[in-house]
Amino acid sequence: RSGKKSPITLIRCDGYMCEREGVADSHIAFRGAATEQVMLVWSSRPRTVLLLVKKDPDLMSSVIEAARYLLEVENMKVIVEPQVQTQALANGLFLDSFVSSEALHQKVDFVICLGGDGLILHVSTLFRTAVPPVISFNLGSLGFLTPFQFEDFRTEIAEVLKGNCNLSLRMRLTCGIIRQGYVEHEFQVLNEVVVDRGASPYLSNLDCFCDGKYITTVQADGIIMSTPTGSTAYSMSAGGSMVHPSVPAILFTPICPHSLSFRPIVFPDSAQLRIEISEDARSHAWASFDGKSRQQLRRGDGLLVEMNLFPVPTINKTDHTGDWFQSLDRAFNFNSRAMQKPLP
Amino acid sequence: RSGKKSPITLIRCDGYMCEREGVADSHIAFRGAATEQVMLVWSSRPRTVLLLVKKDPDLMSSVIEAARYLLEVENMKVIVEPQVQTQALANGLFLDSFVSSEALHQKVDFVICLGGDGLILHVSTLFRTAVPPVISFNLGSLGFLTPFQFEDFRTEIAEVLKGNCNLSLRMRLTCGIIRQGYVEHEFQVLNEVVVDRGASPYLSNLDCFCDGKYITTVQADGIIMSTPTGSTAYSMSAGGSMVHPSVPAILFTPICPHSLSFRPIVFPDSAQLRIEISEDARSHAWASFDGKSRQQLRRGDGLLVEMNLFPVPTINKTDHTGDWFQSLDRAFNFNSRAMQKPLP
Amino acid sequence: RSGKKSPITLIRCDGYMCEREGVADSHIAFRGAATEQVMLVWSSRPRTVLLLVKKDPDLMSSVIEAARYLLEVENMKVIVEPQVQTQALANGLFLDSFVSSEALHQKVDFVICLGGDGLILHVSTLFRTAVPPVISFNLGSLGFLTPFQFEDFRTEIAEVLKGNCNLSLRMRLTCGIIRQGYVEHEFQVLNEVVVDRGASPYLSNLDCFCDGKYITTVQADGIIMSTPTGSTAYSMSAGGSMVHPSVPAILFTPICPHSLSFRPIVFPDSAQLRIEISEDARSHAWASFDGKSRQQLRRGDGLLVEMNLFPVPTINKTDHTGDWFQSLDRAFNFNSRAMQKPLP
Amino acid sequence: RSGKKSPITLIRCDGYMCEREGVADSHIAFRGAATEQVMLVWSSRPRTVLLLVKKDPDLMSSVIEAARYLLEVENMKVIVEPQVQTQALANGLFLDSFVSSEALHQKVDFVICLGGDGLILHVSTLFRTAVPPVISFNLGSLGFLTPFQFEDFRTEIAEVLKGNCNLSLRMRLTCGIIRQGYVEHEFQVLNEVVVDRGASPYLSNLDCFCDGKYITTVQADGIIMSTPTGSTAYSMSAGGSMVHPSVPAILFTPICPHSLSFRPIVFPDSAQLRIEISEDARSHAWASFDGKSRQQLRRGDGLLVEMNLFPVPTINKTDHTGDWFQSLDRAFNFNSRAMQKPLP
Repeated sequence: RSGKKSPITLIRCDGYMCEREGVADSHIAFRGAATEQVMLVWSSRPRTVLLLVKKDPDLMSSVIEAARYLLEVENMKVIVEPQVQTQALANGLFLDSFVSSEALHQKVDFVICLGGDGLILHVSTLFRTAVPPVISFNLGSLGFLTPFQFEDFRTEIAEVLKGNCNLSLRMRLTCGIIRQGYVEHEFQVLNEVVVDRGASPYLSNLDCFCDGKYITTVQADGIIMSTPTGSTAYSMSAGGSMVHPSVPAILFTPICPHSLSFRPIVFPDSAQLRIEISEDARSHAWASFDGKSRQQLRRGDGLLVEMNLFPVPTINKTDHTGDWFQSLDRAFNFNSRAMQKPLP
Repeated sequence: RSGKKSPITLIRCDGYMCEREGVADSHIAFRGAATEQVMLVWSSRPRTVLLLVKKDPDLMSSVIEAARYLLEVENMKVIVEPQVQTQALANGLFLDSFVSSEALHQKVDFVICLGGDGLILHVSTLFRTAVPPVISFNLGSLGFLTPFQFEDFRTEIAEVLKGNCNLSLRMRLTCGIIRQGYVEHEFQVLNEVVVDRGASPYLSNLDCFCDGKYITTVQADGIIMSTPTGSTAYSMSAGGSMVHPSVPAILFTPICPHSLSFRPIVFPDSAQLRIEISEDARSHAWASFDGKSRQQLRRGDGLLVEMNLFPVPTINKTDHTGDWFQSLDRAFNFNSRAMQKPLP
Repeated sequence: RSGKKSPITLIRCDGYMCEREGVADSHIAFRGAATEQVMLVWSSRPRTVLLLVKKDPDLMSSVIEAARYLLEVENMKVIVEPQVQTQALANGLFLDSFVSSEALHQKVDFVICLGGDGLILHVSTLFRTAVPPVISFNLGSLGFLTPFQFEDFRTEIAEVLKGNCNLSLRMRLTCGIIRQGYVEHEFQVLNEVVVDRGASPYLSNLDCFCDGKYITTVQADGIIMSTPTGSTAYSMSAGGSMVHPSVPAILFTPICPHSLSFRPIVFPDSAQLRIEISEDARSHAWASFDGKSRQQLRRGDGLLVEMNLFPVPTINKTDHTGDWFQSLDRAFNFNSRAMQKPLP
Repeated sequence: RSGKKSPITLIRCDGYMCEREGVADSHIAFRGAATEQVMLVWSSRPRTVLLLVKKDPDLMSSVIEAARYLLEVENMKVIVEPQVQTQALANGLFLDSFVSSEALHQKVDFVICLGGDGLILHVSTLFRTAVPPVISFNLGSLGFLTPFQFEDFRTEIAEVLKGNCNLSLRMRLTCGIIRQGYVEHEFQVLNEVVVDRGASPYLSNLDCFCDGKYITTVQADGIIMSTPTGSTAYSMSAGGSMVHPSVPAILFTPICPHSLSFRPIVFPDSAQLRIEISEDARSHAWASFDGKSRQQLRRGDGLLVEMNLFPVPTINKTDHTGDWFQSLDRAFNFNSRAMQKPLP
């Protein structure tokens, strides 16, 4: 036994549970990359689809076309939102609908979006816990989360039904508003939650905590807590990095910080972040969730932000990296040609 | 069976291996956070320590003091570098040493550094595969990776011997230079690898690939590929975000890019990045590894960068988050006081 | 005459007037630098001083001390604000005051501020046209525009009375709110005017004009139009450069712009800038002036911004460059020591 | 006389000369904007033109066409560079040329460039003192300083001959390398002078002075001193603002600074900047001038940078602001459409 190294055990805690791991030869190593490309396999053919469409009367003919195909050719059950059901009926087509979205996640095999990025946010709202895989078709303007062309609807749907398609598991954040020690409201965001000073002329003075420990006091116009999906939205306007959708991280990006040394921070997905409006703050603050549901945060209120364990699985056209760079190209001209544009 | 959703299986691939996972109720969920706080537990008391010190004759008395304590009080075997062995002998103290660092990782239970951040880079060079846990004491100037005070040496070492200390598993990157299709040289970096234009007046025109697929052509002064540990070093000077050491990510930060739309990118740890100097580039490029070992990259050469599966485990004073924010405070005055400094 | 170059005349227009200039030998040249260090010379000893103080009861003893010195030793007439007059009287000291600030600029030789940067903004409000030279003493916390220590009050005032002190002529902006084609309200700012989206979740969509010509449509959280004095305030938080107080320029700094190619712009002082809320904007906007007097801008409203010909002359401790870098040091640790702080 | 304010005289010094100015009613005011739009008026018709062309054999037919028009229709004397003279002769056309560029500025009424932005840099090299007005035609790819289309050559030249065209007076910087106390070499730059660390792994540690006074020590990859014309070139890649060509300013933009508080600075045109490589610097530095003439700066060497009193007058298509925003549009898609591209 002499000359042998002391055996090592690691205890790994992710904030949800802890796990012991013996270390072979005391050689500490990663167990592989923490990030993955995920592929979807159906054990039996999917039969129920939720068909969502952007609110726009001009799109009704596309909806009818898509629904007929799914019903008649693919022999699926097609669920639509109530107002679409009514419009479809006016066109002589009977489709299923729902009263409450509560039980949808127990019925729907996958979701088809006809529209733009906004619809994916809507999916996230409909499914507060588990979300079925989502395939997203653009109708006209190209979106960031919308890699599929409606012209190719039939072949693309046929591929999805076969399975073997790649997914991006898009992290969501669960955001709870704390009042008098209790979480009063809860919101799920796919892009970001923002705390800002609203119309107040005074800048916010926000105490920030990570895993219960005080980190810093933000003096800025506001703070953005973003998912990787949201990294190319508001967070980027405020100077945050572009984060690949597979990186298990929460971005913490200050908006116009007073301190020159306060740079955007990338926290691990296990981080539990808390923002507090201190009792002696000069003004209230406001929180908004994916740009909506604006809530006032009064002195003493707090906001708790952590990863939601249920991601939004979006179906890739190629894979998570290929689709992402395609989106960057479309949205920002992020490509070799832009690169070569000469500066004087 | 009717009304049941189609069962789902996910196949997860991290670039090293693939794994099948049945999805309960077809509810796709994360299996917990991908990131963790890791705690070290010794199954038996460690007996062999590698004691490293910054090259500085003034530090010899501290080395002697530390070594005597480890030998005489803690009853450990103390290994030092050859030149320290010689100097210790001149002070009447016999310490073990080594000729080649090849087998060190099979003997050393943990490493003590007396010095500064530079010594951790040296540890990374000595241990190219598995690295024992490292405890780092500053002697004078406070470092970024050096949370412990030498004044507290005895109590801190006693704590480490007990175990139950937190670790940051710091990712390293394996960087291979490709010439005529073969990897010729390999370097491990703890901070970053940089490809730049050196003294050439022409900006580099670098083709970039992720997992074998073409991503973009970088027209810039250079490109930094950094670990989270390196995120607060050169990458930050070039505009990259501060990335928590637990985030499994590789930073890709351009240096003075020509294109205004080229922002710093955060890739997942599973990404295999490749940079190529195209055959028709206007000039050569240069690669440097943690600021050292500068190598010329000629037209047609490439650089392959991916995660090394063996991290550098550094012992935390508190935990990975607490230590990190302490470092940001020390290095950048990143704290509440700086925050409150009023702008006019 | 053959072989001679064609003689050239230049017509120079600054937006206020045009001027013809014959060019010797047709050699076009600058007539010297456009920017200057300005020195103040009194033709006779100043006799009337306006003494301003921050609203803070603890400062009354300093005010009394300063006023007594000015009255009794320097034999000057001392004017204070009405509420200070009352408080001074309660302390047995009679000082002059004023009802309206309208005529102040015809009486006051120079202004003494006891307080902080906020007082200089107050001076700018009191003197809407010509402003007398201002000397600014800090009482406790160091300000950005406040280079003098109150301990040195007597010697510094003696120096000012002698004259031969350097001045920074700090540009102000005249900001007019346009409604239905007419300028309705006018504000003078020393730091900046900001147009933002207030509490609206929709980002502003602002049409921008320079000298009557359409420049761009800003899609951002807002836009900052700043003087050089304001360049180290809000504009810097939003990514603007630090602009020396002598540079005759208006900064145009977007707040979180949507477009990655929209960088902060520095316009010449002759630029007349106009922002319009288009009739089909999704929401109103808000304007604020040196952080105050928040005004709603409705669809169809506009904001006209141009240089005020009357600057705020602040008395330098050394000169305009020396004082400025001292301020940067104090406020941002912008100095050689901070520079040498090593990154890991 | 009692009740009158003390009369004020201002002494204005721009680093070249000082000037006294009585202040009416002691009301300190700007004498108008310091920046101007300049219009060119010929007192007699110009007769001598310098025709420059990018080195590219494919352009010879355009040169011949332009020269024939100038000679035969406009009846001007056309001067070309020696190698163009030879090529024109081979095409049966005799044009004037020159041996040394020394006396060119005494003969040439205006300059025509057929090519791209690079040619304007060449003009700046040919005319080290006074520069005649320059009209710049692009041949194919659109340049930043090249607003005119060659298709419109005849009408545009006819307009120039009439005069009444707007000019941008583009500032140049005179850069002197100081060795052992003496200026050894002098360079004129139209874009920027850069001091960087070249291939050295050590970052430069540069002492910076303004008007003889120590300002700061730069620890960075390098420093860019740029004209407003150069503000949209390298300086912008390093984070500098876009500066309108009429602003009398020198940009001081650090490249990857170590200190987070070191932001780009805009100095007045009167600033005399000096960079010194301290005797104890860890390595040499390198200076390059408009991307050319790379010079080593050894320990103890210095670099003196100040405004050259002779600008490069470029002829505007519309005016200095209109042309500039057109260029920004062409080069960076800086326009309303890019603005409206939605982020997800």
